[in-house]
Amino acid sequence: MRGVVMYAPRDVRVEERADPVIEQPTDAVIRVAAACICGSDLWPYRGADPVERPTPMGHEYVGIVEQVGDDVKNVKVGDFVVGSFFASDNTCEICRAGYQSHCVHREPMGALGTQAELLRIPLADGTLVATPRPPRPEEIPGLLAASDVLGTGWFAAVAAEAGPGKTVAVVGDGAVGLLGVLAAKQLGAERIIAMSRHADRQELARRFGATDVVEERGDEGVAKIRELTDGLGAHSTIEAVGTQESMMQAIRATRAGGHVGYVGVSHDVALPGLELFFSGVHLHGGPAPVRQFLPELIRLILDGEIDPGAVFDLTLPLEKAAEGYRAMDERLATKVLLTL
Amino acid sequence: MRGVVMYAPRDVRVEERADPVIEQPTDAVIRVAAACICGSDLWPYRGADPVERPTPMGHEYVGIVEQVGDDVKNVKVGDFVVGSFFASDNTCEICRAGYQSHCVHREPMGALGTQAELLRIPLADGTLVATPRPPRPEEIPGLLAASDVLGTGWFAAVAAEAGPGKTVAVVGDGAVGLLGVLAAKQLGAERIIAMSRHADRQELARRFGATDVVEERGDEGVAKIRELTDGLGAHSTIEAVGTQESMMQAIRATRAGGHVGYVGVSHDVALPGLELFFSGVHLHGGPAPVRQFLPELIRLILDGEIDPGAVFDLTLPLEKAAEGYRAMDERLATKVLLTL
Repeated sequence: MRGVVMYAPRDVRVEERADPVIEQPTDAVIRVAAACICGSDLWPYRGADPVERPTPMGHEYVGIVEQVGDDVKNVKVGDFVVGSFFASDNTCEICRAGYQSHCVHREPMGALGTQAELLRIPLADGTLVATPRPPRPEEIPGLLAASDVLGTGWFAAVAAEAGPGKTVAVVGDGAVGLLGVLAAKQLGAERIIAMSRHADRQELARRFGATDVVEERGDEGVAKIRELTDGLGAHSTIEAVGTQESMMQAIRATRAGGHVGYVGVSHDVALPGLELFFSGVHLHGGPAPVRQFLPELIRLILDGEIDPGAVFDLTLPLEKAAEGYRAMDERLATKVLLTL
Repeated sequence: MRGVVMYAPRDVRVEERADPVIEQPTDAVIRVAAACICGSDLWPYRGADPVERPTPMGHEYVGIVEQVGDDVKNVKVGDFVVGSFFASDNTCEICRAGYQSHCVHREPMGALGTQAELLRIPLADGTLVATPRPPRPEEIPGLLAASDVLGTGWFAAVAAEAGPGKTVAVVGDGAVGLLGVLAAKQLGAERIIAMSRHADRQELARRFGATDVVEERGDEGVAKIRELTDGLGAHSTIEAVGTQESMMQAIRATRAGGHVGYVGVSHDVALPGLELFFSGVHLHGGPAPVRQFLPELIRLILDGEIDPGAVFDLTLPLEKAAEGYRAMDERLATKVLLTL
């Protein structure tokens, strides 16, 4: 099969890879219908994470079940399925508490490389959710978004306790931040302040439900959020970047007793204990337990209530993946969908 | 009046200080019935916090109202009152959300020095809670504990979401940690693991409701907690020390999706972003909004349902405060009560 492999920073190739096979009776193999490039794929692309060997890329996917292992009961050949970036059994105590991304048997899908024609899914019964009907082509981008960026933005909004009566600030205007705006809106937030200095992203943020846009960053951005909230700060802040600056911006933009939901993968972050202590905020985040939200997200998408697929502003065939990485690196695209 | 003043590390004196007077119409002046020495008073005593000038000491207090300003409506002369270590108006938006320790008009009582015969209370209407009846002498230590260590341990247990079905780990066996055990028990926790290596404190922890005691610290302590919780970690962890080691011990002892309630005042703590991210815990803490809990705590104490006064294991007259500081510094006492 064809698949995307990163050889080194800025060296992304599409090449022949071995077809995956059922290895465990709990596995399935799916034919990928669409995959995409994630903001987190840019860390190794830019050299911020090491690329120690040629690495199959991608951790987001939707597709059609092609084979199932003997123990698989919940999905069958021909089902259209959505999964998350961690395979999970969905039965352990941690999964039952809603934290499937920390499942005691979890396996990172990124290690398998979902930007490929075929994909082995470990723990298929726990990992995959079949759509109640085959999706129409225009619904596929939204379902693909659910696999990570929507599920992650949704978790951030839940972790930030976005809801009725709340003012929600969103740090980061990538796909996750933008879908955090959408999630906050769906969860009933009263006011949603998107922090963005890019006109196209501001526009999408407003379409997803942002009521205000703040262009300032860092301390100036914090001052602006406080100005908009009677000097108190937001009730809820979504952090979707993962740098020291963005984390401190999120914490400082939040009132005492408020909630920061952080989902940007941390890079060189050290939180100063005393400042955190006196901030009085709640802090929760990490790799999103997307599996928890998938049934609801699939329903919202197939009912036409949300259109998260709008974050994809560039669609390319798998063979042109390198072009997609370049476009995201150069901020020419927010999120790239790869068709198969 | 007589009051405690710290001149330098290990130099604590009891001397004449000016009697406080009503400065604002919202002030009250109380005659202190009992005060105490806090674990946090040991930071400057040990030289870990600077002592830049002779500093009146103490931030915990109970007493009888002696004078009130013209605007004070909720307490009257002769009332027995309990307050917290932050004065708060109890009417601003932050107070109404239950975070009185972050009140927009808060004033730290530590700046006034409560280890003294008389004490000015700013924002008396918001700060003070009058007991529904005059306490009996044996109830005074418990009410004094409510002023900080009980209220702080209680907040830590609430922040850690201790409750029915939960396993709660407690890092720190000082007065706050021990009263965190008591709070977790009152909140209905199923299992409470006290981390302590001092026999007398272990005994008090068990009396307050601890079901298990772990003597190991650091990574070994974490391993022990995981061993006791099917490898998953505690649902809820109370952190009541404030060092890098204790914070990491608390985070690592907690399962993904679990809650860490931290109330030890941070000293040289920097939380590594990536480890926190992948821990998946909730983190909440800071200066406890004791005022939120005071009415309920006073009720529990006067009804005899809890006996937090048991943390005081040394009682001295105010004049012997220096001896009290020494006893706590040398761990000869867990918590020292000063009589007036």
